[in-house]
Amino acid sequence: MVSPPATMFFRSRWVEPPEGVGERDPAELARGFRAAGVACGLKGGGGTDVGLVACEEDGVRSALLLTRNAAAAAPVRVCRDECEPGAIRAAVVNSGNANAATGERGYRDALAMQAAAAGALELEPTSVAVAETGTIGVPLPIGQVEAGIVAAATRLDPWGGRRFAEAIVTTDRAPKLCTVSAGGVTVSAQAKGAGMIEPGFATLLCFIQTDAAIPDPEELLRAAASSSFERITVDGQLSTNDTVLLQATGRSGRPLPEGLIEAVLLQLALEVVADGEGATRTARVEVSEAASGDEAERVARAIANSPLVKTALHGRDPNWGRIAQAAGMALAGERMGELGADSIEADELATDADEAEIAVRLGRGDGVARIYFCDLTRRYVEINSEYTT
Amino acid sequence: MVSPPATMFFRSRWVEPPEGVGERDPAELARGFRAAGVACGLKGGGGTDVGLVACEEDGVRSALLLTRNAAAAAPVRVCRDECEPGAIRAAVVNSGNANAATGERGYRDALAMQAAAAGALELEPTSVAVAETGTIGVPLPIGQVEAGIVAAATRLDPWGGRRFAEAIVTTDRAPKLCTVSAGGVTVSAQAKGAGMIEPGFATLLCFIQTDAAIPDPEELLRAAASSSFERITVDGQLSTNDTVLLQATGRSGRPLPEGLIEAVLLQLALEVVADGEGATRTARVEVSEAASGDEAERVARAIANSPLVKTALHGRDPNWGRIAQAAGMALAGERMGELGADSIEADELATDADEAEIAVRLGRGDGVARIYFCDLTRRYVEINSEYTT
Repeated sequence: MVSPPATMFFRSRWVEPPEGVGERDPAELARGFRAAGVACGLKGGGGTDVGLVACEEDGVRSALLLTRNAAAAAPVRVCRDECEPGAIRAAVVNSGNANAATGERGYRDALAMQAAAAGALELEPTSVAVAETGTIGVPLPIGQVEAGIVAAATRLDPWGGRRFAEAIVTTDRAPKLCTVSAGGVTVSAQAKGAGMIEPGFATLLCFIQTDAAIPDPEELLRAAASSSFERITVDGQLSTNDTVLLQATGRSGRPLPEGLIEAVLLQLALEVVADGEGATRTARVEVSEAASGDEAERVARAIANSPLVKTALHGRDPNWGRIAQAAGMALAGERMGELGADSIEADELATDADEAEIAVRLGRGDGVARIYFCDLTRRYVEINSEYTT
Repeated sequence: MVSPPATMFFRSRWVEPPEGVGERDPAELARGFRAAGVACGLKGGGGTDVGLVACEEDGVRSALLLTRNAAAAAPVRVCRDECEPGAIRAAVVNSGNANAATGERGYRDALAMQAAAAGALELEPTSVAVAETGTIGVPLPIGQVEAGIVAAATRLDPWGGRRFAEAIVTTDRAPKLCTVSAGGVTVSAQAKGAGMIEPGFATLLCFIQTDAAIPDPEELLRAAASSSFERITVDGQLSTNDTVLLQATGRSGRPLPEGLIEAVLLQLALEVVADGEGATRTARVEVSEAASGDEAERVARAIANSPLVKTALHGRDPNWGRIAQAAGMALAGERMGELGADSIEADELATDADEAEIAVRLGRGDGVARIYFCDLTRRYVEINSEYTT
């Protein structure tokens, strides 16, 4: 019996990967996939800003989650209207420009990105997903982006995971990616996100590739997102561009080990929180004994999004009174028992733990929910008041 | 014809006081009222921290609005359970300790404050309202407070408005108070508030006295609060202690001039926003063409509470993309037209205006709402991460 390798990716105390999982060089994609990242000039300083990920297999199955924001960006609208979500072969992404609130021109530009990628890869446009992230309200320099897409298509590589991950980041401190194996299947994934984070049915951007056989990719992805990306908040802001794409070739002939995708997505989600704009600490709030699961989630989100709780986390102040206030706000108008020191555990706010746990028992039923969040710091204010994002 | 005196109190561009309104020394209360403020040791440095305001008239009519927070503080519970809201003769207040999340002991302490004030003033306890503000979750040193109440009762003065206003502030930069006259009636009012501000059916603390004859004080107060205190946000946090008390003697034999109470409450509400923790600028967002008034309010609150919009206000960044994102978040799941630069006016974010106006047209109907808010600054983070509040 061999010990599993020392873990690099699964580092959170809150993630439980399946037994026997192995971590690999995250540049290497799951079999059947190639990716690339190039610079087309959207980002200052020549940063990589156009990415492509493509599957060689005709019979790939996929699932696509998109933001519910009513002011959804052009690429999200194109994915909604012009894609076959269950049969996505490739995704084209830019970072630096969200192509959001850009009107009809923005929609045409997103369609042009889809067409450029489809042409370069010799695919149907409906099998190409488009994602964009960056500044809102600025027209896309589409010629540059199209040139970048053509260049990226010539550099697709089975070891292109890192270049692709670099091509999708914005204010992230580092790219977020992994390649893990278990039970004879491999999963690779790349994500980005730091601000404008409180996803509903999706997150900022995440791309997952696997050679596992997945009977219902959409059901799997929705369930895994609901316990990971949909449980995090940085600043309570549902983005206009959230997109998650899962692609599965089935080439391994094996099913996914139970909990593998969930663990990958939760670790990536926690990296997004830890990399929240200006963040120095992460916390998990668990609300239990709520009247229902929905109520527990509502209370947990109110606590996680309270700037008073977030600054207490930053200041290492075990200020459970602010937790009681936020919980009471979420339950406004309802009569409830006193929320005192004996129903709120917040000691870890004051410790050196990078991942602090908070527990709140409402005494109203058996509903439970957990939300992961980060602290609010001067740096968040600096990042967002000094630069147009 | 005489010009109205230069205004000191009504200084916001957004407040329209009735014609002919006169401003008086705000220390002077409306006829029939006396007030006092003393120091009992709750605040460090000997700050004034116990206040009393009392009406001499037996037939006073009153209205009392209380926070809807389900974790309401002990004084709010006492007001709810042990007061006659239409016949409040006096209010007793402390600042420095919110007496919130303090369990049965907190409730007994709030009752003891009520009893001490009633005893010193020779009133029925049910005619005395109790309000407290300050740190949550810390037991009240009730002996000190009772001694302060007895001392305050001996110093009640018709010119005690300023001392009372000083006795109710916490992190406020200055006390907030006014005395105004119009149409033969006088209104005096004192308010406090700087953080934990997004009132629902009330605000932090506000006390209003008048000699006008008011047929239905509760109806008047609810309506006036709904266009003032219920339209502001500093940090989106519904407090555990919000309390607004209106007392009217009717001694002038005259009705209130139309719009007077509304103007007083709106100016006080704007002072609370301008004095928001760490705030340097105020803004008003007007959302119009919404499908309903409720929808307009939901969108306006999402914009006003977005940390991305609040930091843009601070950084004088006319970042209308963040406004579109917040509006879309509030309408998540609904299909709507593009929110582009032509439907959002945010130029004043970039100007030197202390009071910046933002306008958003949704193109969905004729619902309108306005919300007033302040910027998010490094100082907010410092205040709330460095001190237990």
